[in-house]
Amino acid sequence: MKHIQGGVCAPQGFKASGVHCGVRKNKSKRDLAMILSEGPASAAAVYTQNLVKGAPIYVTQRNIADGVAQMAICNSGNANTCNANGEEIAWEMCKLAGAAAGVAPENVIVASTGVIGQPLPIEPIAAGVAPLFAALNENGSTEAAEGIMTTDTRLKEVAVEFTAGGVTCKLGGIAKGSGMIHPNLATMLVFLTCDAAISPAMLKKALSDDVKDTFNMVSVDGDTSTNDMVCIMANGKAGNALIEAEGDDYAAFCAALNEVTTTLCRMIAKDGEGASHLLTCIVNGGKTVKDAKLAAKSVVCSSLLKAAIFGADANWGRVLCALGYSGADIDVKKVDVSFRSAKGSISVCEMGSSVDFSEEIAKEILLEDEVEVLVTLRDGEASATAWGCDLTYDYVKINGDYRT
Amino acid sequence: MKHIQGGVCAPQGFKASGVHCGVRKNKSKRDLAMILSEGPASAAAVYTQNLVKGAPIYVTQRNIADGVAQMAICNSGNANTCNANGEEIAWEMCKLAGAAAGVAPENVIVASTGVIGQPLPIEPIAAGVAPLFAALNENGSTEAAEGIMTTDTRLKEVAVEFTAGGVTCKLGGIAKGSGMIHPNLATMLVFLTCDAAISPAMLKKALSDDVKDTFNMVSVDGDTSTNDMVCIMANGKAGNALIEAEGDDYAAFCAALNEVTTTLCRMIAKDGEGASHLLTCIVNGGKTVKDAKLAAKSVVCSSLLKAAIFGADANWGRVLCALGYSGADIDVKKVDVSFRSAKGSISVCEMGSSVDFSEEIAKEILLEDEVEVLVTLRDGEASATAWGCDLTYDYVKINGDYRT
Repeated sequence: MKHIQGGVCAPQGFKASGVHCGVRKNKSKRDLAMILSEGPASAAAVYTQNLVKGAPIYVTQRNIADGVAQMAICNSGNANTCNANGEEIAWEMCKLAGAAAGVAPENVIVASTGVIGQPLPIEPIAAGVAPLFAALNENGSTEAAEGIMTTDTRLKEVAVEFTAGGVTCKLGGIAKGSGMIHPNLATMLVFLTCDAAISPAMLKKALSDDVKDTFNMVSVDGDTSTNDMVCIMANGKAGNALIEAEGDDYAAFCAALNEVTTTLCRMIAKDGEGASHLLTCIVNGGKTVKDAKLAAKSVVCSSLLKAAIFGADANWGRVLCALGYSGADIDVKKVDVSFRSAKGSISVCEMGSSVDFSEEIAKEILLEDEVEVLVTLRDGEASATAWGCDLTYDYVKINGDYRT
Repeated sequence: MKHIQGGVCAPQGFKASGVHCGVRKNKSKRDLAMILSEGPASAAAVYTQNLVKGAPIYVTQRNIADGVAQMAICNSGNANTCNANGEEIAWEMCKLAGAAAGVAPENVIVASTGVIGQPLPIEPIAAGVAPLFAALNENGSTEAAEGIMTTDTRLKEVAVEFTAGGVTCKLGGIAKGSGMIHPNLATMLVFLTCDAAISPAMLKKALSDDVKDTFNMVSVDGDTSTNDMVCIMANGKAGNALIEAEGDDYAAFCAALNEVTTTLCRMIAKDGEGASHLLTCIVNGGKTVKDAKLAAKSVVCSSLLKAAIFGADANWGRVLCALGYSGADIDVKKVDVSFRSAKGSISVCEMGSSVDFSEEIAKEILLEDEVEVLVTLRDGEASATAWGCDLTYDYVKINGDYRT
C-alpha cells in the first residue's frame, strides 16, 4: 500500500494545529492540539475498558453517539481523570473549541492525557483556543501530533492512499503512546482522518473490527490506561460513492485502515517508555485465533522476557514460561521458538525442548532494534501478532518519578 | 503466635542440610538441599498452574499421590524444565537421595529451580548426595535454605509453636523466591515441616485452602513460574492425637500454618528481584472476597505503581487505574485510598477523587522499606491482602542478563 506524507492532514478537507497553552509548565512543549474537518464527518471511536475512565471519555461517548463529528481537541499534561469537576471541564473544552470554529459543541471529540487526579484548570485552554484555531493549516499534522505527546520520544503519524469506487482516497493518523499501554478493546490516543465517504455504521464496524487485531495486541507495561481512545473522522471530500455496505470499497477502506493502525501500533510499541527494542511476537499454528492471540500477547507482556530482550539474551525458557501461563490451549511438547531480526533468524527450541544453538549468533540477532519471536504451535491454522517493547532502566527512571 | 528458631528443623524429627555439588559453577554457593524426616510423614503439595511444568513437578506429583513422603531433595542453578530427559533425571535424583537415606524413592519430594531449557547433568548431584546426607543435622535449616536460593538475597525461614490436643507442636518452613513470581494456585519453592500428627487428607485440605490467601496473593513480576511448588511434611513426632477432622486442633494447625506462610509471603515479596520496598495492598469493603482479591492483586502487580513506589512518589492515580482494570466489581466513585508505613498514614483519594495532601509527608511515608496501600471500596464487607514489591533498576539488571 502506498504511504504518503501529511498524517491527519493528508486526506482532503482536514486541517490541524498544536500550540503551547500552559497546561504544562515547560513552554517549549506543545500541550494542546486541534483537528478540524471542512464539514461534518462520519465518526466512530473505541474507548478504554478500564472502569476508571477519564472525564473526556464520557463526553466524547455522548458527542459521538450519533456517528457524526467535525473536530477534535486534546490537551496533554493532565488526564482530567478522577476529578470531581472533570466532565464539566471536558464539556467546556468542547464549547470553547466549537465556538472558535463555528461548530456545535456536540460535534467535538475531546481527549486529555497526562497525570491522573490533578484538577485540570480551564484557563490555559480557554486562552489557548484562539491561537490554536488560528494556527490550523493543511500541514499541521506534525504540530498536532506533538501537542498530544507525553513521555513519547518520537512523533507518530502515518497516511496512506487507497481506491474506492475508482476514486483515490486518503487515510491518515496520529497517535501517542509510551506508558500505561495495555489496551483492552481500545488503546492510547489515536486520531484518524479519512476523506472517503463512508456511513457512520460501516465506519464503526470497520474500526471496532480492526482494533481487535491492532491496538488490542499492543502492550508496553500491562497497565490499561483510563483515557485510551481511538477515533476516526471520514468527511467524504474524496468524492467516492458512499460506502454503506460490505464489498470491494469497504474492503479497500479496511485494508487502508489496517495499514495505518498497524503502522501506528509498531510506532507506539517501539517508543514504549524507556524502550530500546521493538518486540514483535508472531504465533502460527494455533488451534483458534483466540489461542494464538493469548499466546502472542502473553509473550510480549512477560517482564522477564522483556528484560532479557533488553540484554539481548536469548533466554527462550521465558518464552515457553509465558506461553504456559497465557491461558491459550496449547500442547507445550509441540512448540517451536525462533528469534529473528534484520541479522537473520535462529531456532532455539523445537518440540518444547532445548536445541543446540550459537549464543553468539543469537546475541547478534537480538542486538538489532527490531526483534521478532516466532512461535509455532502445530495445533491448527490460526495466527496472531502482538507488539511490545523491552523493559529497561529508563522505564523505571521515567515512572519512578513521573510527576516531578 | 510464638515464633521460634530452627526453620524446617524446629519441628521434632527433622534434619536438613545444604552443600555445593557443582550444578552451579560458583563454588561458594550451595546448590543442593535435603530435608529428612525420622519416619514417614503425611505429605501434601500444591503446584504451578503453568502448562509448561518443570520435570520434578510431575515426579513429585506421582510420589506424593498417596499422601506420604519422608524426605525432599532440591537443586538450584537449573530448573530441569523443557528438557527431553527431564523426568528421568528427576526420578534419578529421588533414587539417589532415597538410597543414601534408606528411603523408598517413591517417598522423596524432588524439586529444581534455576534456568529453563538447559539439560541438568546428573553427575554433580550423584557425587553430592553422599556429602549432603552426611551433613544432615538438626540445625541444618539455614544451610538447606541457602541451597535452594537463586537470585534471592536473603534467607527465608520461619517456625512457630502451636498447641493441638494439649500438646506443643511446631511448624517450620523455608522458601525461595525472587523472580518469576506470580503464583497461580501455588508458588515458588516452599518446604514446610511439622511434627504434629495430621492425616494426609486434612493436611492437603489445610494447605490448599491456605495458599489461596497467601502464596496466590504474592506477585513480584507477573510471571508464573514453571516450577512453583509448596510442600509440607508432618511426621507426628509431637505426640498429639491425630488430627483427622475439623475442630479446635485443626484450627490451631491452620492458624500456625497461616502464620508461617504469611511470614514467608512477606519475605518472598520483600526480597523480590531488585526490590527496595515491600508493597502490601489491603483492600476492605469489597462486595465479595473475589472482588477484594482481584483489586488487591491488581494494585501490587501494576508496573507503573511499582515504579512509583521505587521513587517514593505518591502517584495514587496509578492505584485507581489498577483498580479499574482489575476485573473486580467496584464503584470507582466510592473508592478511598491511603498510603501507610511506620512513619504514619496519609489519605490521598476520597470517593474516587483527588484530595489535598502534603507531598512531603507522603514522600516521607513512602521512603520506608515497608509500605502499604489501603483501599476502601464501600461496597460490602470482604477484605483481601496482596504482597508485592517495587520495580527497580536492579530488576532490569538482574533479568537483562540472568544467564551469563
